[in-house]
Amino acid sequence: MSKSSVTTTAPSRLAVMNFLNEVADDYPNAISFASGRPAENFFELDDWLGAIPRFQRHLTARRGADLEDTGRWLAQYGRTNGLINDLVAAQLQVDEGVPATPERVVVTAGCQEALALCMHALCKRPGDVVLARCPTYIGVTGVADLAGISLHALDEGGDELAAQVRHAAQALAAQGRRARALYLIPEFDNPTGSVLPRAAREAVLAACAELGIVILEDNPYGMFRFDGEREPPLAALDDRGVVIYLGTYSKTLCPAVRVGCAVLPPTLFGDAAASAALLAELGERKSFLTVNTSQINQALVGGVLLAEQGSLARLVAAPLTHYRRNRDALVDALALHFRGTPVRWNRPAGGFFLTVDLPFAFERREVLRCAGEYRVIPMPMTFFSLGGGHRRRVRLAFSNQTPESIAAGVERFASFVHDHMEVAS
Amino acid sequence: MSKSSVTTTAPSRLAVMNFLNEVADDYPNAISFASGRPAENFFELDDWLGAIPRFQRHLTARRGADLEDTGRWLAQYGRTNGLINDLVAAQLQVDEGVPATPERVVVTAGCQEALALCMHALCKRPGDVVLARCPTYIGVTGVADLAGISLHALDEGGDELAAQVRHAAQALAAQGRRARALYLIPEFDNPTGSVLPRAAREAVLAACAELGIVILEDNPYGMFRFDGEREPPLAALDDRGVVIYLGTYSKTLCPAVRVGCAVLPPTLFGDAAASAALLAELGERKSFLTVNTSQINQALVGGVLLAEQGSLARLVAAPLTHYRRNRDALVDALALHFRGTPVRWNRPAGGFFLTVDLPFAFERREVLRCAGEYRVIPMPMTFFSLGGGHRRRVRLAFSNQTPESIAAGVERFASFVHDHMEVAS
Repeated sequence: MSKSSVTTTAPSRLAVMNFLNEVADDYPNAISFASGRPAENFFELDDWLGAIPRFQRHLTARRGADLEDTGRWLAQYGRTNGLINDLVAAQLQVDEGVPATPERVVVTAGCQEALALCMHALCKRPGDVVLARCPTYIGVTGVADLAGISLHALDEGGDELAAQVRHAAQALAAQGRRARALYLIPEFDNPTGSVLPRAAREAVLAACAELGIVILEDNPYGMFRFDGEREPPLAALDDRGVVIYLGTYSKTLCPAVRVGCAVLPPTLFGDAAASAALLAELGERKSFLTVNTSQINQALVGGVLLAEQGSLARLVAAPLTHYRRNRDALVDALALHFRGTPVRWNRPAGGFFLTVDLPFAFERREVLRCAGEYRVIPMPMTFFSLGGGHRRRVRLAFSNQTPESIAAGVERFASFVHDHMEVAS
Repeated sequence: MSKSSVTTTAPSRLAVMNFLNEVADDYPNAISFASGRPAENFFELDDWLGAIPRFQRHLTARRGADLEDTGRWLAQYGRTNGLINDLVAAQLQVDEGVPATPERVVVTAGCQEALALCMHALCKRPGDVVLARCPTYIGVTGVADLAGISLHALDEGGDELAAQVRHAAQALAAQGRRARALYLIPEFDNPTGSVLPRAAREAVLAACAELGIVILEDNPYGMFRFDGEREPPLAALDDRGVVIYLGTYSKTLCPAVRVGCAVLPPTLFGDAAASAALLAELGERKSFLTVNTSQINQALVGGVLLAEQGSLARLVAAPLTHYRRNRDALVDALALHFRGTPVRWNRPAGGFFLTVDLPFAFERREVLRCAGEYRVIPMPMTFFSLGGGHRRRVRLAFSNQTPESIAAGVERFASFVHDHMEVAS
C-alpha cells in the first residue's frame, strides 16, 4: 500500500509540543509566527467576569429561586452535559448556521476535551481508525497517540476529498479495520488556512453517510472570515446524521474561559437511539474526566451571550478587522520579498494561518537557524504531518501579531530564504 | 483464585451514575443521603470571584508587567502544568502536611482529571492493574472501565492492608500481570468514612516501595476532621518516592472552581529521572485533554489563597463545625432508632460519610422502595463494590444536610428497616 495508516511516534509529537512551547521563550528577540494564539489586545476579561451576575440573574428567573440560592447552586457540582446548552445552541444557530438544539449539546472544558471524548467514544476497538487530512491539527494527533488510536492520512486536497475517503475506507476494510471518523476543519484549516469548497462538502458528506463514517467538524475560526461569502458548515448540510460539530469560545472570547462544546446530530446515520446512546456515552466519559465544565466559566460565557443578545458578531468585529489587516500585511510582505522567486503562498480567506511553499526543505534545523540568526520563527509544516512529509512548507500564524511585526518578520524570513538559496545554488 | 481481578461492567457503573444523578430528582420529597456534595450554605462565590483581581495584582508584581497586560496574559492560553503551583504547594504544606514543591505540582481541571491522568500514565500495558480497597470511590472504577484498566479489589480493612497488597501483587505476577498503583483515601474514606491507622500507613508504604507500586493518595476530606489528632498523609511519610498526592478545592472552596492537583514525589522509587518523566507525561496527556486548567479558575483559587495568607483553615472552620454537628446528629439519630437492634454503624472521625450495616440486603429495589414509600434515600454500598459484595450495607452522606433533616431522615429510614425486618421475621 502506498498510503498506510500511521500513528505518529511519541518523540515527534513531543518534539512538536516542546518546540511550540519553548522556541519563543528560547529566542525572546525573535518575531514568532509559530503559535496561533488569538490576539490578546481584544480580551476584556474584567467585562466578561462582570457578566457572571447577569447570568446569575437569568438563572434565578429560570429556577424560580432567589439570587443567593442560585449563587450557591451555581458554585455546586452541576449537570455533566452543561448548564448553558440553550445559549450555546442559539449562538451556534445565529453565528455559525449550525442547527443545534440544547439537548444535543455537550458543554466541555475547552474544545480539546470534546475532541478527545468523541475520538475515545467512536474508536473503542483496536481496528478503529480516524481519517485526517495531512497535515493536520496536532490536537488530533495527540489524542490518537495517547489513546492508541490509528490515524490514516488523507492528502490535503479539497475537491478529491470524498474520493480519498472512499479509497481509505476500502483499503482499511481490506485490512479488517474500520474508518470510524473523519476529522476536518473545513473553514480556514489549521495548519493550511484552506477552505473546503461547497461541492467537496456535499461530496464528503455523501461518502461518509454511505460508509458510516462520523465527521468531526472542528470550527474554531469560522467567525473570522475576511473575504467572500460564508460556506455553510457541514453540520448545516447534514441531513443524514453524519456530523458532530465541535465549537469553542477560546477564539471568540478567550482561551482562559476553557469552554467548548460538541453538538451531536439528531440521528446517527438515521438512528436516533444511536445518537442518544453516543450522547450518553460522551457524558459518562466526561463525568470521569472533568466531572462537569466549571459552572463559573459557563456562567461567564452565558453572561456574555446574554449581554450580546445571543450573538458574538459584535464582539468579534474588532479582532476580525485586526486579523484581516494582519493577513493583508502578511500577503503584502510576502509579495514584496518573494515576487519573482520560486517561493509560493496562499491567501487565506480567513482564520489565523497562511502556508508558504519553499524550494528547499525547512525543518527543525532550519527553524533553529532562523530563530537564532535571523530572529524570526516560522513553523515547519512537517511538524503537522502524519508521516513526515510537507518538508518544504511552513505555516505562518498571523493572529497574535501587528502589521509592523509581520512586515519585519517577513523581511527577516526573506533574508534567511535568500541566503539559504544562494548557498544552495 | 478466590479473589480475581474484576473490571466492573458498564451497565452497573452506568446504573450507579444514573442513580446518583436521578434519584433525588425523581423523589423530590425524599431526604437524600445519597450524594456527598459539600454544604452549599458556606459557598461565598461572590467573595471568591472578588479575589481574582488580588491574584492579578500579585501576578503583575511577579511578572514585572502592568495590570492590564497581566489581565490579557491571564486570559490567554497558559502553562499546561499550572499557574498557581507555588500557592498550591504552600497550602498543601501548611494545611495538609504534604511536602509539596511547586515544580512537582500539576494543577488539574478538578481532582478527577488528576486521577484519570495518573491512571492512564501508570497503566499503559494490558496487564497493568490498579489495586483498590473494596468498596471504593466510583471515580476510580469509572476511569478504569473507560480506559480498559483492570482493578483488583482488596478487602476494605485497615491493619492488614499491606499484607493484602503483597498477596495481590504476588497473585497478579503469577498471572503475568503487574500491580502498578494502589488507590487510597486514607482520611475519611469515600464510601466508608474510615481512617487508615498510622501503623497501616507505614506498612503499606513499605510494601509498595518494595513492590514498585505507586500509591495514589486521594485526600478530599483531610481538612474536615472532627475528633482526635490528624494522621500524617502518606505523602508526608514517604521517603522512597511511592506516593502521588491528589488534592482538590471542591470541598474546601466549592466544586464549581474545578481546580485540583497531583503532586509527584521527588523520585519514583529513588529514580529522579523517572519522576520527571512521569511529570512530563502527565503534562503531555493533560495538553491533549484540557490543554490547561482555566487561568480564571486558577486566579480565583490563587486570589483566595493570597487573601487567606496561604491557608484555608479559617475558611473551613464554619463548614467543619457544620459537618461535625451533622455527624453527631446522625450518630445520635441512629442510636435513638437502632439501639438494641442488629443494625450497626461507624462513627467517622471526619469527612462526609458514615456506614450502616443492616441485617438484610439493601440494593436497588430497597432504595427505590425507601425513596418512594418512606421518602428517604440511603445509598446501597454494593453500588461502590467492585464485585457486587457489601449487599447489607449502606452509605449515608451527611455533608449537605441539617441536623433536623438528618433526624427526620433517619426516623424514616428506621421505619423502613423495622417494617422490613418485621415482614422478614
